[in-house]
Amino acid sequence: MQIAILAHEKFPERAKTALGVLRYGDYDVAAVLDREQAGTRVHDHVPDVQDAPIVAGMADLEEPIDALLIGIAPIGGGFEGSWRPDVRAALEAGCDVISGLHYFLSEDEEFAALAAENDCELRDVREPRDDLTVSRGVADEVDAEVILTVGTDCSVGKMTATMELARDAREAGHDAAVIPTGQTGIVIEGWGTPVDRVVSDFTSGAVEGMILQKGDDHDYLFVEGQGTIVHPAYSAVTCGILHGAMADKLVLCHAAGREAIHGYESFPLASIESYVDRYESLADPVKPAKVAAGALNTHGIAADEDARRAIEEYAENLEAPATDVVRFGTEEVLEALL
Amino acid sequence: MQIAILAHEKFPERAKTALGVLRYGDYDVAAVLDREQAGTRVHDHVPDVQDAPIVAGMADLEEPIDALLIGIAPIGGGFEGSWRPDVRAALEAGCDVISGLHYFLSEDEEFAALAAENDCELRDVREPRDDLTVSRGVADEVDAEVILTVGTDCSVGKMTATMELARDAREAGHDAAVIPTGQTGIVIEGWGTPVDRVVSDFTSGAVEGMILQKGDDHDYLFVEGQGTIVHPAYSAVTCGILHGAMADKLVLCHAAGREAIHGYESFPLASIESYVDRYESLADPVKPAKVAAGALNTHGIAADEDARRAIEEYAENLEAPATDVVRFGTEEVLEALL
Repeated sequence: MQIAILAHEKFPERAKTALGVLRYGDYDVAAVLDREQAGTRVHDHVPDVQDAPIVAGMADLEEPIDALLIGIAPIGGGFEGSWRPDVRAALEAGCDVISGLHYFLSEDEEFAALAAENDCELRDVREPRDDLTVSRGVADEVDAEVILTVGTDCSVGKMTATMELARDAREAGHDAAVIPTGQTGIVIEGWGTPVDRVVSDFTSGAVEGMILQKGDDHDYLFVEGQGTIVHPAYSAVTCGILHGAMADKLVLCHAAGREAIHGYESFPLASIESYVDRYESLADPVKPAKVAAGALNTHGIAADEDARRAIEEYAENLEAPATDVVRFGTEEVLEALL
Repeated sequence: MQIAILAHEKFPERAKTALGVLRYGDYDVAAVLDREQAGTRVHDHVPDVQDAPIVAGMADLEEPIDALLIGIAPIGGGFEGSWRPDVRAALEAGCDVISGLHYFLSEDEEFAALAAENDCELRDVREPRDDLTVSRGVADEVDAEVILTVGTDCSVGKMTATMELARDAREAGHDAAVIPTGQTGIVIEGWGTPVDRVVSDFTSGAVEGMILQKGDDHDYLFVEGQGTIVHPAYSAVTCGILHGAMADKLVLCHAAGREAIHGYESFPLASIESYVDRYESLADPVKPAKVAAGALNTHGIAADEDARRAIEEYAENLEAPATDVVRFGTEEVLEALL
């Protein structure tokens, strides 16, 4: 499927979904829409993902697309008015629009009318199934070993670590699958439940349901974690995933140099050791699990040597092997997990 | 308002909402419906709340009512088919029906038709407002001191402790209000957000919103907690409330003799000390708060002397004053909180 990805004013640093799709998705990306970066290419910013031209809007596409994908997710998940002309243009050209926003495009009157008129589809991937219920506390009964990524904050690389680890586990000959819990993971994998969008009482149950669905067909499940357990706004989702997944092992993800909660800068990050304690102590009465490895996002560190030193220090704090899964590969960490 | 309370086969032990309304509500209760206890009175089972006859069904009411209240909430929040005749009879008699179930009576075709026909209302108090959003992490900016009840499990007395503490604080001359987060609290207080029913991403935000709404009008806010932070199914809600409330002090609630998670008996309860550590360590990076007091439900202990001994041991484990707020009053505990 040929798509364009909308990432206005956010590419690449603040366009998590766009980057995830470029890196792991099975889509043919015709262009990225970012009016601030128009004229450059994806590879000018991020060399190790699928390349594509960056254009200012739908009018500048050089080839037809099947769908426009909203590749950014602002805090709160709202829809920004400045994106409206591109979504309108896509629908008028008969393209589907895929969105992971809290704001459901299918409930937008103008978009719904345009989609009906032009016989195309508004796919709100964050809309959860309606048969969800409370957890029964049985996710650990599946055959698969369950590995959950947890984090010190949002946007530290949990989705990336999940995808890299699962891919490399498969390449090493293991039968590994991803349990996607957020919009990017769901867009990449083509299925999943947006756990941050379910009724709060069903948070754990939504994760348990996915694990029961896949857990007897694979040897390993890599569960995409969300947020952080000490987030001022999103900790509920993190906690529900932790107890619903009943993981055997945890991978603690962190971004080197991150000092405060992203978007909540008055809340400094706690020490790495204290995160390990919190996650393990919280998991313990439901299903004991250790932080068996760490994934450090060293994107902000220029020199490999400095990145390696940061990873070494991180691993010492964790008392577990660690790496930057994108920069240095997953080998050492996978050894500790599989 | 004159009401009847439906509590079939569950009164009094498993009818938390019914008991809460009888104890703290501002309703005139004409009868409790429990087909297994029909012919007895509320005072035969619970002496220290509003008395009322217990009858087998709507047909046995001795006086007219304004509304039928669903006073039980099974795990999962479903509606049981055996309650249907009573709800039907209430609507046919022109009475409103008030429900805190996950299953919305207003979406039930038969009930909706009957309500329209008989000009009465189906009030689903668990249906959250639709203007909720994510937390901004600012609940601690209100003038009021915020006190949150937390628990070792569901159904250990968090709602009761919240109501008793707020009432006694008011009686002692303080300006104290309750922040209701669950169906019983909402029915009693006449307002509130059912936090277990909101979109999981908005869990903290729902609590923050209520605190911002009331926090500058009172000296103390008592926030009704939910679940427990290590629950296999409901921990997301607990964690979201903890971080959304940004409480100044915590009150740890526990039921004496409880050894496993209610309804999830394969999960033994952790030690009391470890609960204190978990709640404090989890609160810390968002807003430091100590477990400043304990509320022990000693309902299952016959002799006062034994109950006092259990409380003493509980207080030692907490390293904070504790009491059974219903059995022995709140005085000692309020001293530590206000």
